Amino acid sequence: QIDSARLWGSIHETAKFGATAKGGVRRLTLSNEDKQVRDWFRKACEDAGLEVHVDALGSMFGLRKGRDMSKPPVGIGSHLDTQPTGGKYDGILGTLGALEVIRTLNDAGIETEAPICVVNWTNEEGSRFAPAMMASAAYVGDFTTDDILSRKDAEGTTVGQALDGIGYRGDKPVGFQKLGCFVELHIEQGPILEAEGKTIGVVDSGQGVLWYDGKISGFESHAGSTPMPLRRDALATLSEIVLAMESIAKKHGPNAVGTIGEAVIANPSRNVIPGEIAFTMDCRSADGAIMDALDRDLRAAIAEIADRRKVEVKVDLVWRKPPTHFDPKLIAAVENAAKTLGYSSRRITSGAGHDACNLNTTMPAAMVFVPCKDGISHNELEDATQPDCAAGTNVLMHTVLAIAGV
Amino acid sequence: QIDSARLWGSIHETAKFGATAKGGVRRLTLSNEDKQVRDWFRKACEDAGLEVHVDALGSMFGLRKGRDMSKPPVGIGSHLDTQPTGGKYDGILGTLGALEVIRTLNDAGIETEAPICVVNWTNEEGSRFAPAMMASAAYVGDFTTDDILSRKDAEGTTVGQALDGIGYRGDKPVGFQKLGCFVELHIEQGPILEAEGKTIGVVDSGQGVLWYDGKISGFESHAGSTPMPLRRDALATLSEIVLAMESIAKKHGPNAVGTIGEAVIANPSRNVIPGEIAFTMDCRSADGAIMDALDRDLRAAIAEIADRRKVEVKVDLVWRKPPTHFDPKLIAAVENAAKTLGYSSRRITSGAGHDACNLNTTMPAAMVFVPCKDGISHNELEDATQPDCAAGTNVLMHTVLAIAGV
Ligand SMILES: NC(=O)NCCC(=O)O
Ligand SMILES: NC(=O)NCCC(=O)O
Repeated sequence: QIDSARLWGSIHETAKFGATAKGGVRRLTLSNEDKQVRDWFRKACEDAGLEVHVDALGSMFGLRKGRDMSKPPVGIGSHLDTQPTGGKYDGILGTLGALEVIRTLNDAGIETEAPICVVNWTNEEGSRFAPAMMASAAYVGDFTTDDILSRKDAEGTTVGQALDGIGYRGDKPVGFQKLGCFVELHIEQGPILEAEGKTIGVVDSGQGVLWYDGKISGFESHAGSTPMPLRRDALATLSEIVLAMESIAKKHGPNAVGTIGEAVIANPSRNVIPGEIAFTMDCRSADGAIMDALDRDLRAAIAEIADRRKVEVKVDLVWRKPPTHFDPKLIAAVENAAKTLGYSSRRITSGAGHDACNLNTTMPAAMVFVPCKDGISHNELEDATQPDCAAGTNVLMHTVLAIAGV
Repeated sequence: QIDSARLWGSIHETAKFGATAKGGVRRLTLSNEDKQVRDWFRKACEDAGLEVHVDALGSMFGLRKGRDMSKPPVGIGSHLDTQPTGGKYDGILGTLGALEVIRTLNDAGIETEAPICVVNWTNEEGSRFAPAMMASAAYVGDFTTDDILSRKDAEGTTVGQALDGIGYRGDKPVGFQKLGCFVELHIEQGPILEAEGKTIGVVDSGQGVLWYDGKISGFESHAGSTPMPLRRDALATLSEIVLAMESIAKKHGPNAVGTIGEAVIANPSRNVIPGEIAFTMDCRSADGAIMDALDRDLRAAIAEIADRRKVEVKVDLVWRKPPTHFDPKLIAAVENAAKTLGYSSRRITSGAGHDACNLNTTMPAAMVFVPCKDGISHNELEDATQPDCAAGTNVLMHTVLAIAGV
């Protein structure tokens, strides 16, 4: 059994790095707050006897030796970055839970056959730089390191500049640390476990993701003197797109969602009809065929709206992550650990994307979910209970012990 | 006859203060660019023999003596501030046209019975600080000087701080310069004169304006893991409001317009359902009863949308300017000047608000419109011809001569 109070203490101690007034955390990837939590995490890993290395994209790897160093390590961990108005658990539980596993094994004097590697992946959230889970994607070869280094945030700062800014451009090439498999603990970020009174979610699949960048070019004109029928209003166009996205996602539901999270009017003014808007779209489904249908329906709806309103709408697909099907043996190991420990559990699909989904493309991967309050995440009110976090960390530890061998 | 080339030269010389790449002007009120054009204008007025004073809200008054200084001056002028993506004529034609009238009278050695006062009103546009036409509103007593001085822009800078920042908080109290009447020359900012091939618009009325500040409070949550039916999406809510506003304005049309020009998502992120949006609304009609109906229908639609989507929507009316009916005698004077000079003309309603509309509440006021290309305004592509600008300035001059007496 892990030390529940120590785990809880770590979560709340690090929550001060980027703490918000409403009790959440604002710790955008590669920001100063991210540097603070990284420094804390590096020291904690070193104090736990791990050998810490940082790769060229800032991901942090803390290695605990195994008896048989010819075996590839069992990877565990998650991320420490958050959304602009994020919570204290998303990513953090999985990273500090992994640290807690190491601390517990140390205290108990347990050596494993295979080594164990604790990982903190850079930019899981994807809100400062796109795509989300960018460092683990580069790790599995979906993107080159140079491509990722050149990605820009809204201010035009590149990933490379941001890494240098906080001193976390590591000297190890991406992929230097081989892993044999990866197990990630995370809050569910959805309402199912709580509603069904289950403690552990045994994640067997993850939704695929489509991310788009969009731009509407209408025509700026005077709010007072431009008759309604002559307008080419970019905001009215966006409004139709938002509602079309909503009804398309509902039509393909329940296994589909669609969101417009960002929309910025260029040079806004109260008495000017908006002429230009940049926006983003996020569509998801656990079913590849539904993803294709979402893409098709959305593009058709946008073309019709643009044509009728005589505005131009450009839509670029900037990221496509297919649905994830986790490794059956690892899924069984997680399920078995939950059962052995006496926790109630159910199989579950992840609505969110996770680094484990990327790793699953080149190695066996799996995930452990614990409930979060009202299914709320990406919100400062995100919450989870100490017993649930401890339960998830226990399942993580027993899964690792089963894979790594004692 | 005024000097068409000199007028055209002044317009294009000052267009360099805040010139944009697309050929427009960005000269937000009380910005550094506004200071530059103000300095130019003050010197030009002084060179034309005017005595220039600045009031506590930065409005500039250049007085030309008349034979009978007991008579209140005839006010002429407009504004030199622009929209964020404004043009070279909106306000500028009326201000530099007024200067051109003075220069022409000087050259011809014409003395008038009543004095003439050229005015550059602060913040006509209303895009940096609300409301629009704020200085002329304070001049006629609709707001106190202190109230206006405390208004803030999006960055939190007050009018008072902005005035001090460019050295244009004048030493004269608002209202120090009495005016007997006010005549404003302006581009139409709408398509009617051009479509009908008329040179002069004799403005007999102006639309009333309703300005609102709105705030939507939904609930931020994860774009991937929040099922569609559980969302309280602030952007989907805004989208319905935008489209409701559009159909309500059309329903009450053709004598009604409605626009949402500003909408800002708080802490936007691609994979977060928008939780909070601040927005503004602008509704207009030349008919007071229609204004009331717009307000009623809009509030009812918003209440229904908010209720159905389980979000909170706050709407505050921040400005209500009733429709304007200009002074019949001055309207006749403008019409007569156009006829005498041989220009085609028609009566017209102003879609936009103007300082003359404010002045009309405490003194006789009137306006002269000239066509602008395709009716486009509040756009960098705003355009007008040299002959039309000269014609409008001639009508302004002959109207002034008729009122002031030679
Ligand atoms: N777990 C999580 O919130 N990931 C962020 C990436 C995404 O799914 O949008
Ligand atoms: N003339 C003009 O564009 N005024 C700005 C104020 C408004 O009508 O919105």
